[in-house]
Amino acid sequence: MEAATEFPNKEAFRQAVVNTLERRLFYIPSFKIYRGVAGLYDYGPPGCAVKSNVLAFWRQHFVLEENMLEVDCPCVTPEVVLKASGHVDKFTDLMVKDEKTGTCYRADHLLKDFCKDKLEKDTNLAAKKIAELKHILAVLDDLSPEELGAKIKEYGITAPDTKNPLSAPYPFNLMFQTSIGPSGLSPGYMRPETAQGIFVNFKDLYYYNGNKLPFAAAQIGQAFRNEVSNPSLTTIWLSGFQDGHVWLLMSVEVVVFLLLLISVFEVTFTLSRKKEYGLNIKEKLQISPRQGLLRVREFTLAEIEHFVDPDDKSHPKFSEVAKLEFLMFPREDQVSGKSARRIGIGEAVSQGIVNNATLGFFIGRVYLFLTHLGIDKERLRFRQHLANEMAHYAADCWDAEIECSYGWIECVGIADRSAYDLRAHTKLVIAPVKKELGLAFKGNQKMVVEALEAMEEKEAMEMKATLESKGEAEFRVCTLGKDVIIKKNMVTISKETKKEHQRVFTPSVIEPSFGIGRIIYCLYEHSFYTRASKDGDEQLNVFRFPPLVAPIKCTVFPLVQNQKYEEVAKHIAKSLTAAGISCKIDITGTSIGKRYARTDELGVPLAITVDSTSSVTIRERDSKQQIRVSIEGVASVVKEVTDGLSTWGDVLWKYPTHSS
Amino acid sequence: MEAATEFPNKEAFRQAVVNTLERRLFYIPSFKIYRGVAGLYDYGPPGCAVKSNVLAFWRQHFVLEENMLEVDCPCVTPEVVLKASGHVDKFTDLMVKDEKTGTCYRADHLLKDFCKDKLEKDTNLAAKKIAELKHILAVLDDLSPEELGAKIKEYGITAPDTKNPLSAPYPFNLMFQTSIGPSGLSPGYMRPETAQGIFVNFKDLYYYNGNKLPFAAAQIGQAFRNEVSNPSLTTIWLSGFQDGHVWLLMSVEVVVFLLLLISVFEVTFTLSRKKEYGLNIKEKLQISPRQGLLRVREFTLAEIEHFVDPDDKSHPKFSEVAKLEFLMFPREDQVSGKSARRIGIGEAVSQGIVNNATLGFFIGRVYLFLTHLGIDKERLRFRQHLANEMAHYAADCWDAEIECSYGWIECVGIADRSAYDLRAHTKLVIAPVKKELGLAFKGNQKMVVEALEAMEEKEAMEMKATLESKGEAEFRVCTLGKDVIIKKNMVTISKETKKEHQRVFTPSVIEPSFGIGRIIYCLYEHSFYTRASKDGDEQLNVFRFPPLVAPIKCTVFPLVQNQKYEEVAKHIAKSLTAAGISCKIDITGTSIGKRYARTDELGVPLAITVDSTSSVTIRERDSKQQIRVSIEGVASVVKEVTDGLSTWGDVLWKYPTHSS
Repeated sequence: MEAATEFPNKEAFRQAVVNTLERRLFYIPSFKIYRGVAGLYDYGPPGCAVKSNVLAFWRQHFVLEENMLEVDCPCVTPEVVLKASGHVDKFTDLMVKDEKTGTCYRADHLLKDFCKDKLEKDTNLAAKKIAELKHILAVLDDLSPEELGAKIKEYGITAPDTKNPLSAPYPFNLMFQTSIGPSGLSPGYMRPETAQGIFVNFKDLYYYNGNKLPFAAAQIGQAFRNEVSNPSLTTIWLSGFQDGHVWLLMSVEVVVFLLLLISVFEVTFTLSRKKEYGLNIKEKLQISPRQGLLRVREFTLAEIEHFVDPDDKSHPKFSEVAKLEFLMFPREDQVSGKSARRIGIGEAVSQGIVNNATLGFFIGRVYLFLTHLGIDKERLRFRQHLANEMAHYAADCWDAEIECSYGWIECVGIADRSAYDLRAHTKLVIAPVKKELGLAFKGNQKMVVEALEAMEEKEAMEMKATLESKGEAEFRVCTLGKDVIIKKNMVTISKETKKEHQRVFTPSVIEPSFGIGRIIYCLYEHSFYTRASKDGDEQLNVFRFPPLVAPIKCTVFPLVQNQKYEEVAKHIAKSLTAAGISCKIDITGTSIGKRYARTDELGVPLAITVDSTSSVTIRERDSKQQIRVSIEGVASVVKEVTDGLSTWGDVLWKYPTHSS
Repeated sequence: MEAATEFPNKEAFRQAVVNTLERRLFYIPSFKIYRGVAGLYDYGPPGCAVKSNVLAFWRQHFVLEENMLEVDCPCVTPEVVLKASGHVDKFTDLMVKDEKTGTCYRADHLLKDFCKDKLEKDTNLAAKKIAELKHILAVLDDLSPEELGAKIKEYGITAPDTKNPLSAPYPFNLMFQTSIGPSGLSPGYMRPETAQGIFVNFKDLYYYNGNKLPFAAAQIGQAFRNEVSNPSLTTIWLSGFQDGHVWLLMSVEVVVFLLLLISVFEVTFTLSRKKEYGLNIKEKLQISPRQGLLRVREFTLAEIEHFVDPDDKSHPKFSEVAKLEFLMFPREDQVSGKSARRIGIGEAVSQGIVNNATLGFFIGRVYLFLTHLGIDKERLRFRQHLANEMAHYAADCWDAEIECSYGWIECVGIADRSAYDLRAHTKLVIAPVKKELGLAFKGNQKMVVEALEAMEEKEAMEMKATLESKGEAEFRVCTLGKDVIIKKNMVTISKETKKEHQRVFTPSVIEPSFGIGRIIYCLYEHSFYTRASKDGDEQLNVFRFPPLVAPIKCTVFPLVQNQKYEEVAKHIAKSLTAAGISCKIDITGTSIGKRYARTDELGVPLAITVDSTSSVTIRERDSKQQIRVSIEGVASVVKEVTDGLSTWGDVLWKYPTHSS
């Protein structure tokens, strides 16, 4: 049943998964009737249900069980907040422009593609040149704009589409910019992460928690990144084929042809059904951002900010996860070329592989979260960031990486961000010393005090530096119309810190940050398999979602079209819905085998077939085993299994099995 | 216990509610450490839990019970979609600018304020003038930019802050604009409603539903409107009062003073705790957009689009709601000056007061939804839109209005939007007739076909009109470098429609659209009351949330600080959490009465006091009645009540009551 072995290669496997996902409307490329927008996807009905289930479980597993303080902040964020957090200045990609057409490209991608291409195709490369190109690939992320530009020039890299010369690299901010209010004078951005909404509320949340540490805050919400993805749309015109079948064959040929032309890794297909088009068949293939469904422009983040005393990062519940063992990939093993290995998280913390118990606790909880959803534990590893990968302020950082057809994908980042974020938003405190100012300025004291208090952060911090180095500073008081001399003893300027038992410190932040869309995509790949149909003439698709995740928990089929059976089916469906179990009736006259196949492809765990008015059969998706249950008992059996109180194995021996 | 009667007036009542909500972090003005942004609010921990409960119930009540197709589309929307929907051209407010400072105001607000002010304060107005001003107030929404400008000029209205002259009114689009991708050439907006994401997916959803009507799609998500709200921030500096108490008194004085200065209706206060400030107390009062928490710039919408055959708007489940009776306010009653009256929804449909059964069904379901949440049914009415309120394409429209301290507030709009939205996104179909084109253009046929198919909508519709009126049209084929003559028989141009049993039509749309934030705010007002403390020396705040909505279902208090009791409390909390019931332990040494008051103020329905190691008391919030339950039985009793399977009255007689 292991999926990957049945397909010739990863790309064919991915294509089968993605085709199923798009055909059954787990995903829909957004605005596709208007040719779509690269990097934006809708969740169709089953995808939306899966997402909603994953988020509900996240809330239960983290927020409820750990008593976290959940908040919900707006996406629109004023510039000042993202200036303080560093996003306005540093959240950029380096771009180059086609000097004639203005088309933009990511500078590092062009250089990377050039190096890879050269290494693969040029068999006459000297050893020295090979080493040089490999070195560039290794340090690509660390190159300055100037170094990138110099290499692009040196290698004569031109615009891929036109061969026109390229501009020098320049930074492009990845935030979607907008403007708040009608004046046009208040710039804002769509938040690139949800964390800042928590940091700016730190003091209120600390107060809400009774002024005690540690505590965790959490937020689920949309985040936005204006990825540079060259989202050009290639439109293919196919005329004159009015028969769906011929058209489909033609399309596949075109697809195969295109696959030869463009890198397989960067293409996802939007094969819409023929019935959507009129007399002419006009179809498009959308060339998505790199990594299709993984790198998108709007996505759901679920973030936790756990605030903790920097001198005590123990965790009261660490013992509950300490015995867990899973694949870990410490920094040293990566550098020395080893593979990931199974380590107990308790051991990892005690040996200092993981920096502290709180970080270890969250790694353990993330492992439990992901494997409960159905992520294969053999294709899940926790990789430690290398020293040069980590932000300078981070104490330690581990990514939960999930292996899928694109390779190992970062799905959850678990970082000890130290005190960086809170410091960035720490309040400026300007405290004029009234007595000294009164002595010096007499009747003008009030105006000097007001002017001092009105200083912006930059000005205040400059004054602080001047006072510290020179003992006094010149200061313009507009209301007096003149400069005055401020001495060191006349004002205290500081950034606020937290006082607890007379010790002054800024709390550290441990941040597990979940890319919900990526987790869901990997879950689809890990859950997908195919199996032969009963007559063996076709391969049927199945998603083996656990009930927790399944978009619909149960389908109800009347065996034949018959009013009595339909009434029973409706009665059962109603009792399931009332019990909060999502179900769907299928009263089409299609064969029961086809209806099972349809429901397996949506990952529905249980199917109820109504073949009498007193009892029914319940069939489990993966084993295809069936049991016979009285109509009164159906809802409770289904609820037991789908709520996870019993496994299918548990209920199987309680009821008579039924031959299909 | 009726709240409104205990307060001298609506504003005092609102102030009590809002103070409690902000102090207990139901709301936090967003980014307040950076002085905030008007019209943006965070949901703090209890607010976030209430919102999440309301949305979960919405999903159960509408999506699950009605088998709706839920989708989840991005907020970032390309311009072309919102151009087609009409938002780019028509989603505007008329603005005027202070000609010297550039400050913007809503033109209609200035004119309205002028007229109201004049009517109230000028006692010497002639009857004719009074009639004129009243007429302006009545037709305010229908005035053109020119008419508005003329009136502003005629009355000599100037900028309120500066008395400077004002510019002529100009339209300001209320959508937040942004740009998609690095080129700057793809304009986009943050969606102003979620509905368009459903409309553009109509065909896929119709297919998913087995190509059958009727069906409903649903979406919950953020929407954005860049309200013109003059969000000026007034900063008040208070220096030298380092004692919290003195400071608080001072603040209240300032508040009272400001209340005299500015209209009470347009102010919400952000009274932060003194501990947030350093040696200097720097406080701000945020002058919010009109109607404070109700008119915001980012909000959660929950929308349903029910697609139905325009010739058959019956509903199979209408009988399930037909007997419901509630306050309705039909158009005729409004025009003839009557009040809202109780009407059965079955009667309203059969008498033609409500246009059709599907619309009636949703009105009934919305009534059930809102009253289940805890909205007072005596302060809920369904008001029909007047003829001049309705969009020209709507067949009928009813708003669920909830009465709160701001008056009757539109919280849910239930509109029969007819076929407008789907037509707007209907695909253009250009079908060249190959045979005729081949005869006419021979070897050039292919290029003519391609050029025809590449026409944009505007050009194509012009050609269609020309072909219909003149029989032929000139057409530029760029690839041939010349104009050709296209005859009527060479191409068919049409907008796609739906074919069902050979009848061609565009489905009608019935749209219930829920402003979740407004519903929640009204719920807070309807749930709030105060009662005297035991010793009668203070008024305590209570939110009487039903368990369904309550942010925390249950609190657990050890009666005294004692390790045994604490262990029992932790054991109970763990069993509640495992059962999915949110709870909170309070182990502070505060008196039990104070702990009850704290939990009542958060609207927690049940409080468990651990006063022995074998049994505990459970106390209900509103009645303050207590029962004694064994420790093993606690979780199931709490679950029964908070899941709504039993009422408090049901369990009360089963257990010994306990004197408090």
